[in-house]
Amino acid sequence: MLKIGIDLGGTNIAAGLVDESGTILLKKSVPTGASRPKEEIIDDIAALCRRIVGEHGITLSEVQAIGIAVPGGVDEKSGEILFTPNIPFSGINICEILSKKLDGKKVGVANDANAATLAEVFCGAAKGADNAVMITLGTGVGGGIVIDKKIYSGSNGLAAEIGHFVIQMGGEKCGCGRRGCFEAYGSATALIRMTKEELSTCFMTGEATLMAEASKISARTSFDAFKKGDAAAARVIEKYTDALANGITSLINIFQPDVFIIGGGISGEKQFLIDLLQPKVDAEDFAKNAKKRTRLCTALCGNDAGIIGAAFAV
Amino acid sequence: MLKIGIDLGGTNIAAGLVDESGTILLKKSVPTGASRPKEEIIDDIAALCRRIVGEHGITLSEVQAIGIAVPGGVDEKSGEILFTPNIPFSGINICEILSKKLDGKKVGVANDANAATLAEVFCGAAKGADNAVMITLGTGVGGGIVIDKKIYSGSNGLAAEIGHFVIQMGGEKCGCGRRGCFEAYGSATALIRMTKEELSTCFMTGEATLMAEASKISARTSFDAFKKGDAAAARVIEKYTDALANGITSLINIFQPDVFIIGGGISGEKQFLIDLLQPKVDAEDFAKNAKKRTRLCTALCGNDAGIIGAAFAV
Repeated sequence: MLKIGIDLGGTNIAAGLVDESGTILLKKSVPTGASRPKEEIIDDIAALCRRIVGEHGITLSEVQAIGIAVPGGVDEKSGEILFTPNIPFSGINICEILSKKLDGKKVGVANDANAATLAEVFCGAAKGADNAVMITLGTGVGGGIVIDKKIYSGSNGLAAEIGHFVIQMGGEKCGCGRRGCFEAYGSATALIRMTKEELSTCFMTGEATLMAEASKISARTSFDAFKKGDAAAARVIEKYTDALANGITSLINIFQPDVFIIGGGISGEKQFLIDLLQPKVDAEDFAKNAKKRTRLCTALCGNDAGIIGAAFAV
Repeated sequence: MLKIGIDLGGTNIAAGLVDESGTILLKKSVPTGASRPKEEIIDDIAALCRRIVGEHGITLSEVQAIGIAVPGGVDEKSGEILFTPNIPFSGINICEILSKKLDGKKVGVANDANAATLAEVFCGAAKGADNAVMITLGTGVGGGIVIDKKIYSGSNGLAAEIGHFVIQMGGEKCGCGRRGCFEAYGSATALIRMTKEELSTCFMTGEATLMAEASKISARTSFDAFKKGDAAAARVIEKYTDALANGITSLINIFQPDVFIIGGGISGEKQFLIDLLQPKVDAEDFAKNAKKRTRLCTALCGNDAGIIGAAFAV
């Protein structure tokens, strides 16, 4: 049976027709226009669903269900969106509204990071796993938890805020208001901060570095310079991966999942990143001597994870 | 239906006949004698089960199942004990062996901290909850996770090592080999360390304190002196509850459970402890503005939690 998965982002609404294996048969997207009234945005979502089935030459009745992944907290049972900081959907029951516009079709909702984790479990890096934890390393650190092949979102739909456990009491200020959160050390933003800090030290000591040649500092700057043998970049990468591995090991000690997945921009470093992290995790994993250990890997579903996960969540 | 719950400890084996409500109808215990061969210990466990049903005037056939809680890692599905640091049971299938000795009766196994959490969910502080997280503050920090009214022990039976996520990178040395674990700041042992550190400062400054009058420093010393208005003790309790609340808030941000339970020796401070922790958690909980928030409370099942939880786990 086919499902429609929708990834509702702050910039674009992407939707796809997804089969049982997680393959996207047809994909379309439109701009979100997040500043518009929510009614207009929802009409666009419904139109996108009808367009997809039409272009694939089927009718809506041939679609089993529709899943929508949203960037915010949701109540999966009731279908209500609890809050979405970047789109005007807080407090509405997206499932009821969308179902009415789409011939009473069953509609389910999930948080986008949770949906992405589910996608990895059904057809990505954690295929076949029962339990998986995923972090996405981007502007912040997002997270998703899958237990027994189901999204775990806690008792209020707001669980898996994996970026917001403290790894350094009194440490760097985090956007959530706390100090020392994993996000403040493990995100791409944190890596950029560490790169700039190291560069300012290098300028003071007069040490020239390959990092300094970058026209604009990004999360790739230190990784690229490190690969070319830059000593200052090596210090940055050591510091960053120390903190990242520290947080990952803590989460493994709590969850001992089959698979721990790293997604987001930084995960583009793929096996190079895993090879840096694995020995650090090995040294401190509480289950390091266990017969079965958590496998650490990078995500595979990429930008399609939201669409696929939304389809599997419903 | 009745079940037998067994709490296999390093010092004593306690077993009870438990009814559907979680009430222990009859309870007996014998010394573990942990240095003896495992065969002798298992024979004692079997004999204890037979003695309990005999003294209650029923037969083993009237018992639905037997659950055993052990201080270590277990594979609940296979019935194997993965490791038990303090009793010689690592690598044996306790369920198979005990079942053979007890007329083929169904036997299940669980980690003791996980079993205690399950007991709180079925008939204790978290009664009625679907999701609960528990920490036990004693010599170390133990933990248990219950999701959808079932123990969560990860993919290798070793999850819920909640004492071993780092809250202070590079901080206090922990028994597990890491630095800065929650256990190294939240345990009774940590509170005693903080009390001694504060006292040594007080001696240097010549400040006399009620804490110093204690003949022997325990985890109660600072709490008792704080209640009597001791300024130095107030500093210790502030430091300790800051770290404790920090770790608890991180776990709430990850799990958003219905209930977060504090057990172990320190939880004897009951509401006094909760009143100290709650404002600190309120300030940093990611879901502080949510309609439904995690309830923070102390454990209710006490020493019987292992017996009751073992019975509910099978």
